[in-house]
Amino acid sequence: MAKLLNGKELAKIIYTEIKDESDFLKARNTVPTLGIIRVGNKEDDIAYERGILRNCEKVGIKCIVTELEDNISFENFVKALNVLNNDSKIHGILIFRPLPKHLSENKVKHLISPEKDIDCMNPLNLAKVFEGDLTGFAPCTPKAVMEMIKRYKIDLVGKKTVVIGRSMVVGKPLAMLLLKENATITICHSKTTNLSEVSKDADVLVAAIGKAKFVTEEFVKPGAIVIDVGINIDDEGKLCGDVDFEYVSKIASFITPVPGGVGSVTTAVLLNHVIKAAK
Amino acid sequence: MAKLLNGKELAKIIYTEIKDESDFLKARNTVPTLGIIRVGNKEDDIAYERGILRNCEKVGIKCIVTELEDNISFENFVKALNVLNNDSKIHGILIFRPLPKHLSENKVKHLISPEKDIDCMNPLNLAKVFEGDLTGFAPCTPKAVMEMIKRYKIDLVGKKTVVIGRSMVVGKPLAMLLLKENATITICHSKTTNLSEVSKDADVLVAAIGKAKFVTEEFVKPGAIVIDVGINIDDEGKLCGDVDFEYVSKIASFITPVPGGVGSVTTAVLLNHVIKAAK
Repeated sequence: MAKLLNGKELAKIIYTEIKDESDFLKARNTVPTLGIIRVGNKEDDIAYERGILRNCEKVGIKCIVTELEDNISFENFVKALNVLNNDSKIHGILIFRPLPKHLSENKVKHLISPEKDIDCMNPLNLAKVFEGDLTGFAPCTPKAVMEMIKRYKIDLVGKKTVVIGRSMVVGKPLAMLLLKENATITICHSKTTNLSEVSKDADVLVAAIGKAKFVTEEFVKPGAIVIDVGINIDDEGKLCGDVDFEYVSKIASFITPVPGGVGSVTTAVLLNHVIKAAK
Repeated sequence: MAKLLNGKELAKIIYTEIKDESDFLKARNTVPTLGIIRVGNKEDDIAYERGILRNCEKVGIKCIVTELEDNISFENFVKALNVLNNDSKIHGILIFRPLPKHLSENKVKHLISPEKDIDCMNPLNLAKVFEGDLTGFAPCTPKAVMEMIKRYKIDLVGKKTVVIGRSMVVGKPLAMLLLKENATITICHSKTTNLSEVSKDADVLVAAIGKAKFVTEEFVKPGAIVIDVGINIDDEGKLCGDVDFEYVSKIASFITPVPGGVGSVTTAVLLNHVIKAAK
């Protein structure tokens, strides 16, 4: 039976560290501050915001929400963004996505200050991830995966690491972060021939496909480390990952649960980025 | 015996196409023009420049060389660069690298206009390569590899494609271009465990390591397609690639020679980028 890579526990540890760092900064007259931009009142956004506010309060990060009307013009959106860009008391900026269509994300991404871009929207931060330059901000989910790997002292050097999924929010940036740690990386996707055969070769397997319980035991080498980035709803209406936990956990050496795995660490990483920006 | 992927022949075809396009543009009063910035008089740079000038003349691209003193100040370098950035008659800009140390490449790369950045120096173009957005300019060597693959109608979809080497000029951007064509990609490097075993799994193998004849027949699956990006000098003082051509060519299905392979296509790709920028 695989050991659990416990995201909930890990997040607690990271939150404690963030609290310490934020106390340290406050003692030096810097209140680490996150500026959120929310356009409209989508339920998802509001739930996400509530979670962030709760966690910010817990760790002593100040949070300022800028609410904008659904039909705000591009010009006024940019004005609101620039208020945060230019306010030296705001250290990190988070824009909830997707934005309404008329606020072209392709334009907005260039306009967020790269030094405050804690969710890696600006291509300058993406390029840094690609280059293996750790001075910028990586997207939070792949960064959360790396945190789990680091904190559980999983050795990556030279290892066969397979990432299933090639999105810009998880698969591709994660592959670059793994490569930076000297893993041998393979990126698989929907077009990959004999996917289960390729993934069965992995010492470390990351599933980021977005299909409930897609990765069965046929995809996994006995003893492999399995990290599940998926968050889906199964046939019974329950949260589940991309990995068929019940069966894969019997043959893997380490596995992340869903819920309580990578997802739990992601918000902690986001708030850690606010601290990094405040420094 | 493997069939040759003949870079020299392919370059000739591309040059003919470029000539046609440049004639077409000239008939519409646009003379496609490349601006080169060379700092100092390094032998390598001058030889490279001579080759580019010769090829530009052949295909009807105008070429303007800005020669700068070795000890030019950063400010004056930026002024010279901005002359090219702001001149609407200059379509592509090529800065010979490496620059002298006091002209920090890390700063310069942000200052070259992304629309004229035919050698992919600006992080905005790198980010596009990472994202699979083909509207920008990819680095020329990986682009040359993709040209060979495309023109020789090598099917990549789902195939196991292994790139040995993870530099920002070849390995990593090439992996992203291959991924965009739906290959399954693996990036190996000096830290990879059992490198020959991993590379032997490849349907398409690209060597970009920079070590003469490093890839022997033990690294290659019989029937694989082998693309050699290396340019080295062997023990006898002859040009050779990263692949041990004599032996690997006996088991591969297709192979690029060195010289006369990828390198021959690279300058053609560079000039093609000037045409793309002029359009």
